[in-house]
Amino acid sequence: MIAVVCLNPALDITYQVPAVDWSGVNRPSAVHTRPGGKGLNVARTLRILGADVLVLGLAGGVTGAAVASALAQAGVPATFTPIGGETRRTVTVVDGASGAVTAFNEPGPRAGPGEFTELAVRYEKAVGGCAAVVLSGSLPPGVPADSYARLVETAAAAGVPAVLDAHGEALRLGAAARPAIVKPNRAELAGLVGQPLAGRAAVSAAARALRATGPGAVVATLGADGLLAVTEDGSWVAAPPAAVAGNATGAGDAVAAGLAYGLAAGLPWDERLRHAVALGTAAAAAPVAGEFRPADYQQLLAGVTVRREGAG
Amino acid sequence: MIAVVCLNPALDITYQVPAVDWSGVNRPSAVHTRPGGKGLNVARTLRILGADVLVLGLAGGVTGAAVASALAQAGVPATFTPIGGETRRTVTVVDGASGAVTAFNEPGPRAGPGEFTELAVRYEKAVGGCAAVVLSGSLPPGVPADSYARLVETAAAAGVPAVLDAHGEALRLGAAARPAIVKPNRAELAGLVGQPLAGRAAVSAAARALRATGPGAVVATLGADGLLAVTEDGSWVAAPPAAVAGNATGAGDAVAAGLAYGLAAGLPWDERLRHAVALGTAAAAAPVAGEFRPADYQQLLAGVTVRREGAG
Repeated sequence: MIAVVCLNPALDITYQVPAVDWSGVNRPSAVHTRPGGKGLNVARTLRILGADVLVLGLAGGVTGAAVASALAQAGVPATFTPIGGETRRTVTVVDGASGAVTAFNEPGPRAGPGEFTELAVRYEKAVGGCAAVVLSGSLPPGVPADSYARLVETAAAAGVPAVLDAHGEALRLGAAARPAIVKPNRAELAGLVGQPLAGRAAVSAAARALRATGPGAVVATLGADGLLAVTEDGSWVAAPPAAVAGNATGAGDAVAAGLAYGLAAGLPWDERLRHAVALGTAAAAAPVAGEFRPADYQQLLAGVTVRREGAG
Repeated sequence: MIAVVCLNPALDITYQVPAVDWSGVNRPSAVHTRPGGKGLNVARTLRILGADVLVLGLAGGVTGAAVASALAQAGVPATFTPIGGETRRTVTVVDGASGAVTAFNEPGPRAGPGEFTELAVRYEKAVGGCAAVVLSGSLPPGVPADSYARLVETAAAAGVPAVLDAHGEALRLGAAARPAIVKPNRAELAGLVGQPLAGRAAVSAAARALRATGPGAVVATLGADGLLAVTEDGSWVAAPPAAVAGNATGAGDAVAAGLAYGLAAGLPWDERLRHAVALGTAAAAAPVAGEFRPADYQQLLAGVTVRREGAG
C-alpha cells in the first residue's frame, strides 16, 4: 500500500462558459466538481495505475464532506481527520470563446495543532503496512513548517521510504529529515537556493546541493524538458519524446505518483524515471489534474529517453 | 407568521480579488458565503424587519446542507424538503482594480414530482398558521409550470393571501390562480404581454391587463423609478427620494418582502408601497442581496413619495 498525505485538499469546481461576460451574469453550460489538491491528484493517479492507496487528509465543513464523498465515488480509500475550519474550494472558469482559463483558489482553512497531531497518530498507525508514503502539497495555516519532517521521520522509523513534494520551509526542513525522494520543480528549487536557475547546469548544481542536505534523491521537474535526477545511483536526465503543452499541476503530481509507484515496486532508477516522465506527459495532455489516458501513457513509455549524466 | 417558498435556493459565494488576472491563478483576499436565491433574500429581509418567518424550500447534497446550515446561523427558521440533486452555487468575483463584478450562476438541480409534492404537503400544513405567503424565484427543472398556481390555491383555501414573484409561464399561471399581489419587473411584464414597454403608460396598461387575469394587485418594479401598482384600491406610483444605483436583485426581493410585510400587517396600500420602496432602495444600496441598513430604511421612509394615479 502507498499512503498519500494531503493536508490541504480542495473541492475543484470547473465552469465551462460558452463566452464569458466579464462584467455580467454567466450561466455555465457545464459544471464539474472533483476532489482536488496535489495529494489527491497523486492518489487518483496511483489508483488508475492499479496501486493500493490510502489517503490521509484533513477535511472540514460541508466542503470537506463533499471532497470525502467525491473521493469515495472515485474509488480512492481515504481517512480524513476532521478539522474545525472549512475545506477550501477552487473555481476554474474555461472561456469557450477565447480559450482563457481563469482560476480562483480559496485560501486553505487553518488547522489547529491538535488536529494535525490527530492526523499524525492515524498516519503512524497506517504507515507500518506501507511500501511507500507520499507527502504532497502546501501546509495549511496553523500546521508547523516541520510537519513534513516529522512525517518523514515516522515513516523512516517504520522502514518506509517517503516521497516529498513541497516548497519553501516545509521542503527545506522535510529534505533534512532524509526522505527517499524530494521532487521540486525549477521554481521551488530556485526558491531554496535563493536565485534563479538559468540552465540545466544550474538546476543540476542546485539539486546536488539539496541532496547534500539529506534526501536520498532529488528529482527536479523541468516542464516539457522532463526530469533531472540526482540519486544514490548517479545523475540522470529523462525526457519525453515531444513537448506537450498542458496542465503543469497535473503533470507534477503525476510525476510524484510515478516515482512513488516505482519506489514501492522496487524499480531501478532508469525505469522509475521512464514511468514518471511518461505519466507526467500523459497527465499534462489530460484536461483534468489527477487523470490521464492509459493509452497515452503506454505509448509514451516507449518514447521516453533516459540517460545517465555522471556519478551522483 | 409569513411562509416563504424557495424552490431553487443557492449557496452564494463571493470572491474579493485585488486585481483579477483573467488568464491566470487568483487568490481571493476574502471569501464570503451566504444562503442565496430570491426566496431566501426575501426571508432574510423579513427577518431583519422582525417578522416571524418560515422558509419552505427544496435542498440537496452537501451544498443544500451548507445552505440550510448558513440560514440557521442567520436565525431564519426553515424546513427543507430533501431532493436527490445537488443545490446550485453562484460564484461572484469582485475585481478590486476595475470594480467589475462577474457572476457565474450554476443551473439549478432537477426536482422530481414526488419531491415537489412532499414540499407541497409540508406547505399545506404550515400555511394555516400564516398571515401571508411569498412565492419567489424560478422553478427548478422538473417542477411543473403550474406549481405556483397550486400553492396560491392552497393558501387561498386556508384564507391566506399570497405574494408571487416569478416570471414566464409560472407567473402567467400563478397570476390566474388569484394571488393577492404579483410583483413583476419591467422585463417580466414585457415578457407576459409579448412586447417591450417603453413608457410608464405602457407599463400601466400591461399591469392592468395582467391584473384582469386574476391577481388582486399588480406591483411593477421600475428600478430607480420606484413602483407602479394597480390595486383594488386604485392605481399608485411610489418613488424613492433619489435614484440609488446598486443591486437590482436585492432591491426586487426587498420590495417583495416589504409588500408581504405590509399585507400581513394589514397596512393600507399607500403605506405598503412606502415601506416597499424604502426597503427596495435601502437594499439596492447594500452590497449583499437580502440585507439592508436599518438606518437607510428609516431615513428613506420619510422621503418616499406615494401618489394615487386614478381608479384601478
